[in-house]
Amino acid sequence: MNSTIETLLNHKTIRNYKSDPIDEKTLDLILEAGFRASTTGNMQVYSVIVSQDPESLKELCKLHFNQKMVEQAPVLLTFCADFNRFNKWCKIRDAEPGYDNFLSFYTASIDALLAAQNVAVAAESFGLGICYLGTTTYQADKLIEFFNLPEGVVPVTTLVVGYPDENPEQVDRLPASAVVHKEKYKDYSKDDIEKAYKEKEELPLTKSLIEENQVNNLAQIFTLKRYTKKDNIHFSKVFLEAIEDQKFMNNDS
Amino acid sequence: MNSTIETLLNHKTIRNYKSDPIDEKTLDLILEAGFRASTTGNMQVYSVIVSQDPESLKELCKLHFNQKMVEQAPVLLTFCADFNRFNKWCKIRDAEPGYDNFLSFYTASIDALLAAQNVAVAAESFGLGICYLGTTTYQADKLIEFFNLPEGVVPVTTLVVGYPDENPEQVDRLPASAVVHKEKYKDYSKDDIEKAYKEKEELPLTKSLIEENQVNNLAQIFTLKRYTKKDNIHFSKVFLEAIEDQKFMNNDS
Repeated sequence: MNSTIETLLNHKTIRNYKSDPIDEKTLDLILEAGFRASTTGNMQVYSVIVSQDPESLKELCKLHFNQKMVEQAPVLLTFCADFNRFNKWCKIRDAEPGYDNFLSFYTASIDALLAAQNVAVAAESFGLGICYLGTTTYQADKLIEFFNLPEGVVPVTTLVVGYPDENPEQVDRLPASAVVHKEKYKDYSKDDIEKAYKEKEELPLTKSLIEENQVNNLAQIFTLKRYTKKDNIHFSKVFLEAIEDQKFMNNDS
Repeated sequence: MNSTIETLLNHKTIRNYKSDPIDEKTLDLILEAGFRASTTGNMQVYSVIVSQDPESLKELCKLHFNQKMVEQAPVLLTFCADFNRFNKWCKIRDAEPGYDNFLSFYTASIDALLAAQNVAVAAESFGLGICYLGTTTYQADKLIEFFNLPEGVVPVTTLVVGYPDENPEQVDRLPASAVVHKEKYKDYSKDDIEKAYKEKEELPLTKSLIEENQVNNLAQIFTLKRYTKKDNIHFSKVFLEAIEDQKFMNNDS
């Protein structure tokens, strides 16, 4: 064990924040740690937008489905897949960029997400709390407009960062054996599935959620309430259109 | 500063490995640290395939464009976006899953990539080296076949993990000011681009690469040699087809 492993193993998502600011040197160091994450061909095809202005945070709170922590915490970091900077450099250097396709979008997404996770870990190492916002892809079109993102730039995830105003219990995870495959993918039997989800299904929290949502079981909370097919199809269209509008879908030669 | 920040700031990609094995407890702890990464709705919609068998690693080395480190290092970790396990659970629980669409694929990709980066950081905290393999998306179809991945599972990145047999210089990064935007996205002027890439372009390594590749500048190494439009379009098709074949492109209601 070492203190890095401890930081990683102790991760908890924080949803209530103090308004205390993060000092500039700490924020810079956290971002610097993000930029040290692996990046495809050392291209760093991502950007980070730092939101600290209370008026901006209020607007962004609305865009992120009114999750109050967005305006409560002092800093919001929006990570974007970004080939715009690289493309502009190529054009100035008389090099014709071919990065307006899906592979390039996905490559830039990987870059952005690895940097985001380093930032999350770095923030937690300083006692800060973080929360990822899945609403980023749902609202990609509106965030593109809000931040004035040019072609070649798509927001892919957002981190709320600030000092925790709560100390929640750490949530459960599936047993490692349910997530790890040795050498080949071993598909799941009914029995494997029962074993994988047993602990999660038996949690007191699960039982109260089922009652609250008036459904038969935890799986139905996901399919009927939290992540419905209708919403997923709607947001697939929104996100794919944003990717196309930002010129990442030119996949034909 | 703290030792986690130091681990993050000291990251170097390692491309030469000793054959020394990684002991099982260390590997388990590293993976456990990965599974503590944030995950959408605590669904953990990813899987990790651990390759250690020398014969498998030889085959995987071929699939990853003969990058020798793949068969040199003791462990290869393939991270997959995985809704298969979750879908099977839903079906057993009489909950109709609606996760065969692009948004769900992207959500599962985020989950897989955040876990991968935690694994990378955890490995480095134990003195191990890592390298990400971008070839994972290029060869998604062949890796799906190799690992027997069922519908709902797509490989998105791979980590080589092992004890370093080299101690390279840390590579450059763009100045933070070139990657960070305050409040709104400030598009890059010609002058901004010149400033952002100045240090990189003046590196001795850059000059020798330009000579070696017989091109005019560093940008042309990317566009003409390393990441060409032709390859990007080809691999966009391969990857999109893999996503579709694995049943993640049902985006119409």
